[in-house]
Amino acid sequence: MIHAGIVGGTGYTGVELLRLLMPHPDVAVTVVTSRADAGTRVDTIYPSLRGYCELCFSAPDVDTLAECDVVFFATPNGTAMTMAGALLARGVKVIDLSADFRLQDVDEWRQWYGMEHACPDLVAEAVYGLPEVNREAIKTARLIACPGCYPTAVQLGFLPLLKHQLINPGALIADVKSGVSGAGRKAQLSALMSENGESFKSYAVTGHRHLPEIRQGLQAHSQKAVQLTFVPHLTPMIRGIHATLYGTLQDTGKNLQHIFETAYQDETFVDVLPEGSMADTRNVRGTNRCQIAVHRPQNGDTIVVLSVIDNLVKGAAGQAIQNMNLMFNQDESTGLTQLALYP
Amino acid sequence: MIHAGIVGGTGYTGVELLRLLMPHPDVAVTVVTSRADAGTRVDTIYPSLRGYCELCFSAPDVDTLAECDVVFFATPNGTAMTMAGALLARGVKVIDLSADFRLQDVDEWRQWYGMEHACPDLVAEAVYGLPEVNREAIKTARLIACPGCYPTAVQLGFLPLLKHQLINPGALIADVKSGVSGAGRKAQLSALMSENGESFKSYAVTGHRHLPEIRQGLQAHSQKAVQLTFVPHLTPMIRGIHATLYGTLQDTGKNLQHIFETAYQDETFVDVLPEGSMADTRNVRGTNRCQIAVHRPQNGDTIVVLSVIDNLVKGAAGQAIQNMNLMFNQDESTGLTQLALYP
Amino acid sequence: MIHAGIVGGTGYTGVELLRLLMPHPDVAVTVVTSRADAGTRVDTIYPSLRGYCELCFSAPDVDTLAECDVVFFATPNGTAMTMAGALLARGVKVIDLSADFRLQDVDEWRQWYGMEHACPDLVAEAVYGLPEVNREAIKTARLIACPGCYPTAVQLGFLPLLKHQLINPGALIADVKSGVSGAGRKAQLSALMSENGESFKSYAVTGHRHLPEIRQGLQAHSQKAVQLTFVPHLTPMIRGIHATLYGTLQDTGKNLQHIFETAYQDETFVDVLPEGSMADTRNVRGTNRCQIAVHRPQNGDTIVVLSVIDNLVKGAAGQAIQNMNLMFNQDESTGLTQLALYP
Amino acid sequence: MIHAGIVGGTGYTGVELLRLLMPHPDVAVTVVTSRADAGTRVDTIYPSLRGYCELCFSAPDVDTLAECDVVFFATPNGTAMTMAGALLARGVKVIDLSADFRLQDVDEWRQWYGMEHACPDLVAEAVYGLPEVNREAIKTARLIACPGCYPTAVQLGFLPLLKHQLINPGALIADVKSGVSGAGRKAQLSALMSENGESFKSYAVTGHRHLPEIRQGLQAHSQKAVQLTFVPHLTPMIRGIHATLYGTLQDTGKNLQHIFETAYQDETFVDVLPEGSMADTRNVRGTNRCQIAVHRPQNGDTIVVLSVIDNLVKGAAGQAIQNMNLMFNQDESTGLTQLALYP
Repeated sequence: MIHAGIVGGTGYTGVELLRLLMPHPDVAVTVVTSRADAGTRVDTIYPSLRGYCELCFSAPDVDTLAECDVVFFATPNGTAMTMAGALLARGVKVIDLSADFRLQDVDEWRQWYGMEHACPDLVAEAVYGLPEVNREAIKTARLIACPGCYPTAVQLGFLPLLKHQLINPGALIADVKSGVSGAGRKAQLSALMSENGESFKSYAVTGHRHLPEIRQGLQAHSQKAVQLTFVPHLTPMIRGIHATLYGTLQDTGKNLQHIFETAYQDETFVDVLPEGSMADTRNVRGTNRCQIAVHRPQNGDTIVVLSVIDNLVKGAAGQAIQNMNLMFNQDESTGLTQLALYP
Repeated sequence: MIHAGIVGGTGYTGVELLRLLMPHPDVAVTVVTSRADAGTRVDTIYPSLRGYCELCFSAPDVDTLAECDVVFFATPNGTAMTMAGALLARGVKVIDLSADFRLQDVDEWRQWYGMEHACPDLVAEAVYGLPEVNREAIKTARLIACPGCYPTAVQLGFLPLLKHQLINPGALIADVKSGVSGAGRKAQLSALMSENGESFKSYAVTGHRHLPEIRQGLQAHSQKAVQLTFVPHLTPMIRGIHATLYGTLQDTGKNLQHIFETAYQDETFVDVLPEGSMADTRNVRGTNRCQIAVHRPQNGDTIVVLSVIDNLVKGAAGQAIQNMNLMFNQDESTGLTQLALYP
Repeated sequence: MIHAGIVGGTGYTGVELLRLLMPHPDVAVTVVTSRADAGTRVDTIYPSLRGYCELCFSAPDVDTLAECDVVFFATPNGTAMTMAGALLARGVKVIDLSADFRLQDVDEWRQWYGMEHACPDLVAEAVYGLPEVNREAIKTARLIACPGCYPTAVQLGFLPLLKHQLINPGALIADVKSGVSGAGRKAQLSALMSENGESFKSYAVTGHRHLPEIRQGLQAHSQKAVQLTFVPHLTPMIRGIHATLYGTLQDTGKNLQHIFETAYQDETFVDVLPEGSMADTRNVRGTNRCQIAVHRPQNGDTIVVLSVIDNLVKGAAGQAIQNMNLMFNQDESTGLTQLALYP
Repeated sequence: MIHAGIVGGTGYTGVELLRLLMPHPDVAVTVVTSRADAGTRVDTIYPSLRGYCELCFSAPDVDTLAECDVVFFATPNGTAMTMAGALLARGVKVIDLSADFRLQDVDEWRQWYGMEHACPDLVAEAVYGLPEVNREAIKTARLIACPGCYPTAVQLGFLPLLKHQLINPGALIADVKSGVSGAGRKAQLSALMSENGESFKSYAVTGHRHLPEIRQGLQAHSQKAVQLTFVPHLTPMIRGIHATLYGTLQDTGKNLQHIFETAYQDETFVDVLPEGSMADTRNVRGTNRCQIAVHRPQNGDTIVVLSVIDNLVKGAAGQAIQNMNLMFNQDESTGLTQLALYP
């Protein structure tokens, strides 16, 4: 039995970890921290967990967390980096769902996140937790930087094309649409239903923090320099990301469908849809699955890849658990076989 | 292993049965029928089932269905009554999610459903599948009439009060709000998102088919005649029912919270919320659970009971499986322990 | 030309006042205050007003506001009462959209609103701005207490019945559903789309601030003591209130449809729907109209009245302008003839 | 007074014409046809029009329509082409909101719309009703082909760039998101709220009927051949289109913001947002306005244009009335000055 702790249990990724870990057969969640709600039963704040979770929130405390085998950080950026070192030193594995360890370039991290990094040395050790790319490294890692939601959907859609040098890395476009839960469980005007309901908008067109992360991930598999235009949008729904990816084919003679099917044939959580399919976020809602469809409209030289995930599962908590399963030698899909909630 | 068939697999209750039965450890679904889609793979129409369901839809056929241990009817009203007899005769248990066997009074059924009943004799045999009321009868039943979604939420909320004669049965009000999936997967103007989105409306105020069903269920536990005003509404969301129930207290000296907690203390799927709680459909979404809160505003003589369910689970497919578990001597909650999808 | 000022222009009722007043032929808005956004152009924060509004927000200041003919308070509770006196003294008419002057009983106000009233003397003078009830008093008033959104929908639905003593005032039930904009434009967790979308919930069952206001309004037209059970709910849409009202008929011989049609035959903004109609908030969205449908299900002794409004128009800004039109001897419907936005 | 007829008054563009024409000071709607609902009062089907529209639907009849000055066709594709000739011959101006006269190449029309064109001769005469491009021709036209909703948003966003040869016409990408009302008021499974709510999807990636229309419009202003990748998506809201347009700059030295502001400086219904702005469909909801924002992320050679409209107004009924105003020498914005409904 793996003893797990969750730091920052009151946000959406925190409660999603609880939803997925509570029925996980090999895990016992023993600590859930929340500074603000310390002492309160978890199921008071989340009545959906009544009957499944007897825990109370506690204040975050290294000694308590050190009794866990693994600690998940479902915290705002800047928190994990202040505690990870102490936990690693006590032999605890750390899976960070925030952005603290995602960028290998600490200077770039500082620019995008607006603070000094508290432990640049650990950045080098951290393994980027995209199992479809880094599975072997994850198995032996002590510290995982769980990918962002946008980066997960975009990288899984672009990587087979870059690895086979099928598209021009210098002209990539990712037009991505997210549900509102990506903004987190924070009291902020811009996330009100009156502001987001029944409306569609773009945001952060001039530069979103996930841009350098995606670029880093794509560059690692491209021989030439990656140029990416990344435009995020907010769509009036709660869960789901739909990435529409555009690339310019350098070789129009290849069977693109076949290349994607081959690339992901052994991947449990990447489902390449049949030729001609559309992608729809509802079909992956609540699951750890990425569904991908590949198109070449009008047989032109633009390839269109549609990649959908649930931002809170494959884009956050589910992927974190997938990493944990690998780190603890469990079957990779344990606890992650929920079917999508349709309709 | 229980071999199960589903007649009418393309509607929302049909696909919800598949979502819940596919991972059920004791069930193998062997037949899913759809006249219109016979020959098509189920996961072509429902990509959410890719990887979990290899079946094709087939045309409904008694001989094929007779090889099952149990057949679920997720069909429009009027279908199950034409096939149930033949299946029962072949030793197959039948669980009908439609309304064909819900009303014991065949004349009343004809008035509300606008057709002659095809097998009035079986109506008498059918057991009304509300386990919290009829558990023992369900265990030995051959034919189950699964309750409607509104009747489930309303009966579970009113019954403890009627059984204890705490409220006047002659003046009951059920103001109930449903998500739009209750209208089914049918091409109809009134169910378009442009018609239902961003708007709230009442409907069928003059008389809804679930009225006689609820009345029948309440009357069975009331010594005096039940008079019920039932007003259904449509709320712009997909899943969920929120029943707000009003009764006039005949005895204001009782601890109402305690009465509800006691009434449901052994029920896995009825969760009486702590005193002072509100009810919220999100907390039961995707689950087989009914959550109930009890209030007596301003300590007056009106009691307000809030009762929420997911109309497609406890109000349809989940309850059907709960019945099946009982009929086949399984643990009642097998395959029904999903946590709610929040947010 | 009426010179109008708006105190608290950044909330939803404030911007709704701007939407309605900008094209009003007899009004020039000259001041819009916001402490937080003083100096910012209004259309920077509300791009929907680009081209219609050249104003900047200014800090609230009595001298500046005193140059207006009328000042609207679209502020949180507790603000208007601190400024109204000074403005009235300068000859400015005041229309308060908050709750400061709604309750005639200052003690009751203090209990429900949790603060001392700053000017109890003005409470007595204030006219409750429901034109369908108080039209003549409004015409000569200096200070208007604009009704709350719930109270508007509920009173318009119940009053004809109480006035004709058709229902028992001792057993009234108002089951009311509101869109989320009623919570205002405030950064608060409970108003996030992730919290409210795709879910339906009750709230404040134990007592909502609009309860005493409704009771006061109903009591004024009832010979016997009013007992009201008022249960508000939140429905996942932005605008709209649907009140479902239940009363026990004391006289079942009257033509209820006729009574409502007669009661409102001269009212521009109350539309009694034809017999047998349902009510739907979409049909009044964006308008100052209340639509009402009257039902007597199963010809029993329970009457069901459906009453729908747009909470931001007839429930707030539109009604305020209707009051202003009356106070300044304009046609009551000037600037308020928008058709509903359907779909 | 312009006497106007509407053929096909029961769809969303038909009822939107009524919403906008009823208060139009220069127009009297005298005929509204609907084969299915002939004889029924319009406000029975659309209670939002109660008090504003006394008309009944009538069966479409050339003699009756010929008494109008102008007839709007808000019909499915294939209807206007069978009646337009007869009306023009009787001196009636025709504004077609369907696709019958949009494509100048009749062969291409047949391929995309799957039927023979009934009056190819009129196609040549028809003027494409995008006033920002064809204002002078519209003024003297007898027959207007009103642009599609996607084509309106996409052309207004791309044209200034093509006219100034700032981008490569051979590599255009239009990633466009539409609310569900674009699918019309038809009973179809794919438009159910249960299918579209709380989900985001792409559709028609392999080829949408608006592709040739957009291409034709862009090509007319480009010296080199236009290659366009057009990917439409469905977003869970009712009204609104958000086009995200990508082009490769051929000249990065120009002030893009200035070029757009200059291009549209005299246009009432195209609003170029200040530098750095995002676009949001809520800010144009219910209005005839297109709002445009221009970005060059990371100062690269990809330009991103955000263009938002209300698909039923500037994308259909509003634009049709803008055309009518021009054809009848009215001020272009008469009847089209509604402010957006926010929130």
